[in-house]
Amino acid sequence: MQFEVTEEYLDKISVEIRSNDIKSLEKRLKKLYPADIAGILNELKPEEGKKLYNFLDDKIAADSLIEMEEDKREQLLASLTSEQIADHIDHLPSDEAADVIQELPDNVQDEVLRELEKDDAAQASDIVDLLKYDENSAGGLMQKELVKVNKNLNMIECVRELRKHADHIEDVYAVFAVDDADRLVGVITLKKVLTSSLKAKISDVYDPEVISVKSNMDAEAVAQLMEKYNLVFVAVVDELGKLVGRINIDDVVDVIRKEETEDLQKMAAVQVLEESYMSTSYFQMLKKRAGWLVVLFVGESFTATAMGFFENNIAKAVVLSLFVPLIISSGGNTGSQASSLIIRALALGEVSVKEWWKILSREIWIGLSLGLILGLIGFIRVAVWSAFVDVYGPHWLMVGLTVGISLIGVVVWGNLMGSLFPILLKRAGMDPAAASAPFVATLVDVTGLIIYFTVAAVLLRGILL
Amino acid sequence: MQFEVTEEYLDKISVEIRSNDIKSLEKRLKKLYPADIAGILNELKPEEGKKLYNFLDDKIAADSLIEMEEDKREQLLASLTSEQIADHIDHLPSDEAADVIQELPDNVQDEVLRELEKDDAAQASDIVDLLKYDENSAGGLMQKELVKVNKNLNMIECVRELRKHADHIEDVYAVFAVDDADRLVGVITLKKVLTSSLKAKISDVYDPEVISVKSNMDAEAVAQLMEKYNLVFVAVVDELGKLVGRINIDDVVDVIRKEETEDLQKMAAVQVLEESYMSTSYFQMLKKRAGWLVVLFVGESFTATAMGFFENNIAKAVVLSLFVPLIISSGGNTGSQASSLIIRALALGEVSVKEWWKILSREIWIGLSLGLILGLIGFIRVAVWSAFVDVYGPHWLMVGLTVGISLIGVVVWGNLMGSLFPILLKRAGMDPAAASAPFVATLVDVTGLIIYFTVAAVLLRGILL
Repeated sequence: MQFEVTEEYLDKISVEIRSNDIKSLEKRLKKLYPADIAGILNELKPEEGKKLYNFLDDKIAADSLIEMEEDKREQLLASLTSEQIADHIDHLPSDEAADVIQELPDNVQDEVLRELEKDDAAQASDIVDLLKYDENSAGGLMQKELVKVNKNLNMIECVRELRKHADHIEDVYAVFAVDDADRLVGVITLKKVLTSSLKAKISDVYDPEVISVKSNMDAEAVAQLMEKYNLVFVAVVDELGKLVGRINIDDVVDVIRKEETEDLQKMAAVQVLEESYMSTSYFQMLKKRAGWLVVLFVGESFTATAMGFFENNIAKAVVLSLFVPLIISSGGNTGSQASSLIIRALALGEVSVKEWWKILSREIWIGLSLGLILGLIGFIRVAVWSAFVDVYGPHWLMVGLTVGISLIGVVVWGNLMGSLFPILLKRAGMDPAAASAPFVATLVDVTGLIIYFTVAAVLLRGILL
Repeated sequence: MQFEVTEEYLDKISVEIRSNDIKSLEKRLKKLYPADIAGILNELKPEEGKKLYNFLDDKIAADSLIEMEEDKREQLLASLTSEQIADHIDHLPSDEAADVIQELPDNVQDEVLRELEKDDAAQASDIVDLLKYDENSAGGLMQKELVKVNKNLNMIECVRELRKHADHIEDVYAVFAVDDADRLVGVITLKKVLTSSLKAKISDVYDPEVISVKSNMDAEAVAQLMEKYNLVFVAVVDELGKLVGRINIDDVVDVIRKEETEDLQKMAAVQVLEESYMSTSYFQMLKKRAGWLVVLFVGESFTATAMGFFENNIAKAVVLSLFVPLIISSGGNTGSQASSLIIRALALGEVSVKEWWKILSREIWIGLSLGLILGLIGFIRVAVWSAFVDVYGPHWLMVGLTVGISLIGVVVWGNLMGSLFPILLKRAGMDPAAASAPFVATLVDVTGLIIYFTVAAVLLRGILL
């Protein structure tokens, strides 16, 4: 079922494009959905892509355009005239049309809107209206196209209204009932329309328990709400409760993907990318990555300071330095596990900040158990090595104990830091995902060294130190 | 709009439950959606939850049950009789009913199914059929309830069929057209039903370009397909093309969330949890975390071996040991960034394995730039410190150069490993997300030490070594 753009496929279609083989192209394109054509346009060389694009019907062209990768779309749009763009986006739902317009340079935006106004003033004014909303709000997600009826009419008029508008509107799942002031009062699903008597009054049919969102609601909150209540669409109302648009689930799926990508990037100590990996320019990428790396580097440079304090001990017992990476990384790894688990659980609403004590009392025991496991393995490693090679000297037993006990301490500490940090960030109104694995590891590295060298100072005093 | 279960709310409703204040409870519950009631049931003490649950209508009870957290639901189910469970799940769509049944102990499953068969043999056989499919396949996601019509009929019969079945089926968006052998041939959306003439033949109305999936298709692939083509529902067919069920977008949103959670856990070197954070038992959690931690520990213990080789150099120049954590963690952090970015880009289909060379040639330059930035800061740090404190001795310049140059090498190397590993894993047919940040960091730690001490051996020969 899934169509895939293979090298061979691209080669064939390129040949057909270059040789103007319209018959073969037509046959080929007839079998494809806009998302598939977009996949091809993403891969073709710009001039070939442009030729193929111009060959498409306006409607198919527009639907394919919206499915393309952002940078490829921008490239293609730059090669079109404002008139062409206007013709195409006239076939798009208002939200997608507004998305395309938003990507254009300011002067082209104005030109395209002026062109569009000549052909379809309603669409132009819908787009201008949508452009006012914040991208990351319900208003930025919604489309203006919907079917609504006055609650005082009856079902015949509802069906008439549907028949009048449905052809120009994609994905209609319901009719919204409004009062005389255009305020949303209820919803009638198409299933309900089909199973109700035509003579019934709309006020007897509509479901008043309609879920709606304010146009300024945060896009992620809209996604969570639609997910929670399993909604396929949601009505958008303004401050006065007037119906201004609707949001479909497919737009929200994109929000979920974007939200997850952002969390993941934050958790890897990368500033959120505005575009896809390949579309992000070299300098953008450098900027997004260098910032956090430098912060982490400065934080981590305290390890050099911490170790400086113990330089004399290291000079006396060089063997201590050998275990530094092993011990601090164990704390960091445990902390990464904890922070990732808690960040995710917070994001999915599985745990709340209020439950911090429940989380903590759980993680203390988990950390202790993990610490004991790693501590034991660490001790055994030193013991076994010492049995074969005289690498840790005559005091291998005490060295082994130092390593083992330090591991327990560092792992418990790392686990606590990892689980606490996301909660503290959330409590402070910040994004828990900023408690990235590298961030937690850096924090644990500095403190882990202090734990290690303190344990060593106590256990090895009079022996090696 | 969003309903939230606050402490106060819980206190109030507990009092009402304990005092059997049916009037207040009724008033309270009338305003709530099943997902909200589930939120309350999740938080109440088991015995209070059970009382509240028993107070609900069967339909509301069932819809709330399915929205509860898994462990809380299991607790509640364990307190119900098989007859009660059967009565409730009879009100659920077949897929949700099968999900509930699957959570029950084997002997209870049989009892519930026998009870259900007495009341609703069709539902019981639908469930038994659904239980055959793999949870992570299209068959495991689909529901059996749908409206279908023979393509040789006309639209009047289509509407009749809809009216007959629609009341028992939630979320109907379309009617499927099938041939005499029950093979899927097309689809008619409800919008199309409403805008077509009743006299039209179904074969003239249906859209033959219906997208369907095989019942054994992987659930994640179904999610990707529905996302790509912006589908609200998709038909499921068997090997012979016969229509066996349909999948709705809201089930797929759960798949997307689950998939992202799994990726995130893998990326934090945690084995995928089967349940939510809080529902995972202490021993389960320990098992899921200890495995990878031990593997990483064993891998990281090679750092001790590597440093062992350079023990004499460390003894001669203890100052070298001070920078070990700083240098290796910089490589690890850079590698984590790269691996997370590439894992995500692969998961979203933004890049493919074929493009490995494009990715690599990009990341070499990014790594070099990041290395230069960190190397420079590292050098400056040593230089500035040396100006104020005599911590790095008279040869601070060469120490600074050693640190700076090592940082460049380690960061470039870490970035390459981080970007290559996910691609190699994917190429080998494995999950790229297994190239977790801790895994990449461990790899880079061992090699990073070798880079550092080799640079030191070259630059500091005859000076400190």
